[in-house]
Amino acid sequence: MKNTATLLISCPDRRGLVAAIANFLLTYNANILHADQYQDDDAGLFLMRIEWDLNGFTLDMSAFEAAFAPIAERCSMNWQLKRSTEKSRLAIFVSKYDHCLVDLLHRWQTGELGCDIPLILSNHEDCRRVADFYGVAYEVISVNKDNKQKAEARQRELMAEHRIDLIVLARYMQVLSHEFTAAFPNRVINIHHSFLPAFDGAKPYHRAHERGVKLIGATSHYVTEVLDDGPIIEQDVTRISHRDTVEHLIRKGRDLERIVLSRAVRWHLDHRVLVYGNKTVVFE
Amino acid sequence: MKNTATLLISCPDRRGLVAAIANFLLTYNANILHADQYQDDDAGLFLMRIEWDLNGFTLDMSAFEAAFAPIAERCSMNWQLKRSTEKSRLAIFVSKYDHCLVDLLHRWQTGELGCDIPLILSNHEDCRRVADFYGVAYEVISVNKDNKQKAEARQRELMAEHRIDLIVLARYMQVLSHEFTAAFPNRVINIHHSFLPAFDGAKPYHRAHERGVKLIGATSHYVTEVLDDGPIIEQDVTRISHRDTVEHLIRKGRDLERIVLSRAVRWHLDHRVLVYGNKTVVFE
Amino acid sequence: MKNTATLLISCPDRRGLVAAIANFLLTYNANILHADQYQDDDAGLFLMRIEWDLNGFTLDMSAFEAAFAPIAERCSMNWQLKRSTEKSRLAIFVSKYDHCLVDLLHRWQTGELGCDIPLILSNHEDCRRVADFYGVAYEVISVNKDNKQKAEARQRELMAEHRIDLIVLARYMQVLSHEFTAAFPNRVINIHHSFLPAFDGAKPYHRAHERGVKLIGATSHYVTEVLDDGPIIEQDVTRISHRDTVEHLIRKGRDLERIVLSRAVRWHLDHRVLVYGNKTVVFE
Amino acid sequence: MKNTATLLISCPDRRGLVAAIANFLLTYNANILHADQYQDDDAGLFLMRIEWDLNGFTLDMSAFEAAFAPIAERCSMNWQLKRSTEKSRLAIFVSKYDHCLVDLLHRWQTGELGCDIPLILSNHEDCRRVADFYGVAYEVISVNKDNKQKAEARQRELMAEHRIDLIVLARYMQVLSHEFTAAFPNRVINIHHSFLPAFDGAKPYHRAHERGVKLIGATSHYVTEVLDDGPIIEQDVTRISHRDTVEHLIRKGRDLERIVLSRAVRWHLDHRVLVYGNKTVVFE
Repeated sequence: MKNTATLLISCPDRRGLVAAIANFLLTYNANILHADQYQDDDAGLFLMRIEWDLNGFTLDMSAFEAAFAPIAERCSMNWQLKRSTEKSRLAIFVSKYDHCLVDLLHRWQTGELGCDIPLILSNHEDCRRVADFYGVAYEVISVNKDNKQKAEARQRELMAEHRIDLIVLARYMQVLSHEFTAAFPNRVINIHHSFLPAFDGAKPYHRAHERGVKLIGATSHYVTEVLDDGPIIEQDVTRISHRDTVEHLIRKGRDLERIVLSRAVRWHLDHRVLVYGNKTVVFE
Repeated sequence: MKNTATLLISCPDRRGLVAAIANFLLTYNANILHADQYQDDDAGLFLMRIEWDLNGFTLDMSAFEAAFAPIAERCSMNWQLKRSTEKSRLAIFVSKYDHCLVDLLHRWQTGELGCDIPLILSNHEDCRRVADFYGVAYEVISVNKDNKQKAEARQRELMAEHRIDLIVLARYMQVLSHEFTAAFPNRVINIHHSFLPAFDGAKPYHRAHERGVKLIGATSHYVTEVLDDGPIIEQDVTRISHRDTVEHLIRKGRDLERIVLSRAVRWHLDHRVLVYGNKTVVFE
Repeated sequence: MKNTATLLISCPDRRGLVAAIANFLLTYNANILHADQYQDDDAGLFLMRIEWDLNGFTLDMSAFEAAFAPIAERCSMNWQLKRSTEKSRLAIFVSKYDHCLVDLLHRWQTGELGCDIPLILSNHEDCRRVADFYGVAYEVISVNKDNKQKAEARQRELMAEHRIDLIVLARYMQVLSHEFTAAFPNRVINIHHSFLPAFDGAKPYHRAHERGVKLIGATSHYVTEVLDDGPIIEQDVTRISHRDTVEHLIRKGRDLERIVLSRAVRWHLDHRVLVYGNKTVVFE
Repeated sequence: MKNTATLLISCPDRRGLVAAIANFLLTYNANILHADQYQDDDAGLFLMRIEWDLNGFTLDMSAFEAAFAPIAERCSMNWQLKRSTEKSRLAIFVSKYDHCLVDLLHRWQTGELGCDIPLILSNHEDCRRVADFYGVAYEVISVNKDNKQKAEARQRELMAEHRIDLIVLARYMQVLSHEFTAAFPNRVINIHHSFLPAFDGAKPYHRAHERGVKLIGATSHYVTEVLDDGPIIEQDVTRISHRDTVEHLIRKGRDLERIVLSRAVRWHLDHRVLVYGNKTVVFE
């Protein structure tokens, strides 16, 4: 089994950053497996992902933070360290449409997604059978106008109980409150069934059909307090024609949604996504 | 050389339409080469494109209208008849960016576009050399706030003089007045450098970059009085990443614009496009 | 529920075919919902798909063949009549990889595939749990060099028992004998994990990796007696880079295989595919 | 104007390579603009592209080789140094089809391709007008069975006279001899009008049509002594249907060929392509 560490860094761009990081890792005999970097010249930002083998790495990982802190401070770095052996814990929120849920669970089972999935949360009973089949706990919390606050309080308790790192909204049809999303910054991924920023909001397939577009899309993004406006992780499109009814768009869209959402989740879990401003860098 | 006739029909849907049209053509010994139809159930509309060989067709084409009129009236048809030997006459409007212009002219020269191109019209001198190379007349009409009405009057004179059937806005940077576009209904094709309805209006590549989308697009559409809102003929997209600057988007976009615009123009010239409501049917 | 009939016709091209068919249907008051036709000029062939509503159709369907026979004979037609209410019966063959199986079963459950699936047949036990979840019978027939003939005999018995119309090889890792495939002409659909004709035969992802291609593909086709050479129904590709290992190709390929196979199966079930020579017409 | 240096390196993989290179550059105060690396674990190879600003770089470039040699030797590096101010000199070989030629020249004129194009070489007169329009010398050397050796000798003279760095075969219909291609290793780029390895050799569009594929492709690759077998730089595909005749494939293919060839040429000119074995790494 893979035993690697991944460092995600963003900081003001300056000379010597690559050398500083490479020298630090070399000091402890790191075998660098992947390194990818990006400078945003307009923003004056340096962003990097670097992954190395922990076999043969001579720095005890419990001492990493202390050892790396001087460099990080000197360069004003935001940084995160991720270990391949510490799996992220993922909760899937779902309503009635189960195609993204089934897809994520199957990918998880076949090993495409390196994570634990301790919990599926829904506002309906419909998907319980699927959850049972994959051996994942299934909690139902009904949400309506009157109980929303209370429902979210219970949801947040469940997130805490299950120590959830990442929430995936797999066609979950309730809008989360600002309080909720603020508690999970860049840790809630949604799939929106349009090519954002076109057709944000409700019923995108109906509106795409009405407008007569020749392609439909899907967009996975981090959820922020502005609906359908968070940093985009991935998008894709598929061709349609005048012959396609709304029902056809919905069917073709399901394939897009599955693929676009699963890519975003996988990249997040592999620590390939860095958010800056309202954008993402995906170190693919 | 091909000698065919193409009938484009739209009418309320009812039983017997295909039989009526097929029988009419068979009466005159038509060899049908292509037939394609589409019913819009919501709108209750029947739309059809049918092309047949004029070799062996026993109805004199000058008598077609009189012969077909009874059927057309009985079925409340909107219909157009096009003959492959009567080439459409196309005017290209261009400003300074010449990539779509050069592309269209090269396709025309290689026989991809079955049309005559008697005129290129611009608000700048820049593209005259290209026009000369391809042997097309090049007229410059400067447009500014003060002379717009007069400029358009002159443009319309030129359209009349050259008996223009179709105007192609090949990155022409002036907005045409409602009066102008109303004079050429479904006969002005524009290329917009975004995936409409996203990023309509000015500077779409800049706004795409700012929003952090993962694909950029281009859209060809008929021009109506609402900017960037006419019936869409064709769209396509290409993948970008965080590494792509606005300049990269502009470069990648040029390839999209060329291909999306040229497809729309070719389909229009081949009488494959039917507009209904604010949509198109493309009988590809 | 939809109650339609679909006629698939191929015959030598000649004048009057459309009129003959349209008139026949109009005689019985057919409301034509879709009609699509294609002429192969080189082969001199006319191919057509026509679907009409059976509500209001005045010819009793049990009398269709007798009524249509004179036209069919006069025009030397090959024709098939399909009714939407008579669902095809599908058997899925699978080995150990379950991604196509799970995908097809989920699509079936959500109503994307208008068929019955009475049987899953495998040479391994691995996928039984999935079959049970979807409530489909699961039969295991081990196949090896020594028992192949006997195994196929048993398979054919099962096909007969379950009155199977279409066999889908969902990454089934055994090559079927000529006798077997000859018994199901154009009724066995396979998914091959390459862009045929490139990388036919074994280990296509490994060979694609070795060759350094920049795209990988998948191909669904009818099975004939020549391996990976039958009429192609659908193909698609996805982009890869030098960074992708064989394992990555296998993962990315799974998404392709699912989509390409499911499209082919859906088109077949909707009677949209006509085979002629070693090619297909897909009336999409 | 950009004033940068780019280092392309390949060497056996080992610890400390990134640090060694980064430290070397930092010693001379390099501002790294882009760095991208790749390890091929199977081959045990490390490949890197690193580009830095020469403004502020304190090592005189004439002394670079001497200064870098110790590191290069210690690590058994193959390396090339490229300066953005030293434009590659490109010769385009063309026969009668001019679509790739026109495309490359237009891109060159608009600044997409950072190179000089001193020469167009053809075995026909047809494209002279285009060459004249863009102000590029046009040399015609007829090639036939009898004079091939002599013709190539003259071609090589012209390459030498014009100090050509890169030869682009823009649908040049003559096969170059082994001697010729051996003289320009990884410096001759061809466009083949199929998705290699499918349909290598002659008439790929005809063969694609005959096989009934649902997508056609184009491949740009370095020319080696085995026909259509060199390292692939870029590939792309476009969808076709049963309706597309060979002529349609040829038309659709022209768009593919233009785009796939121009990408390969641009990447090569931007020093983004490293060949290893029979593959390429494209540091895009």
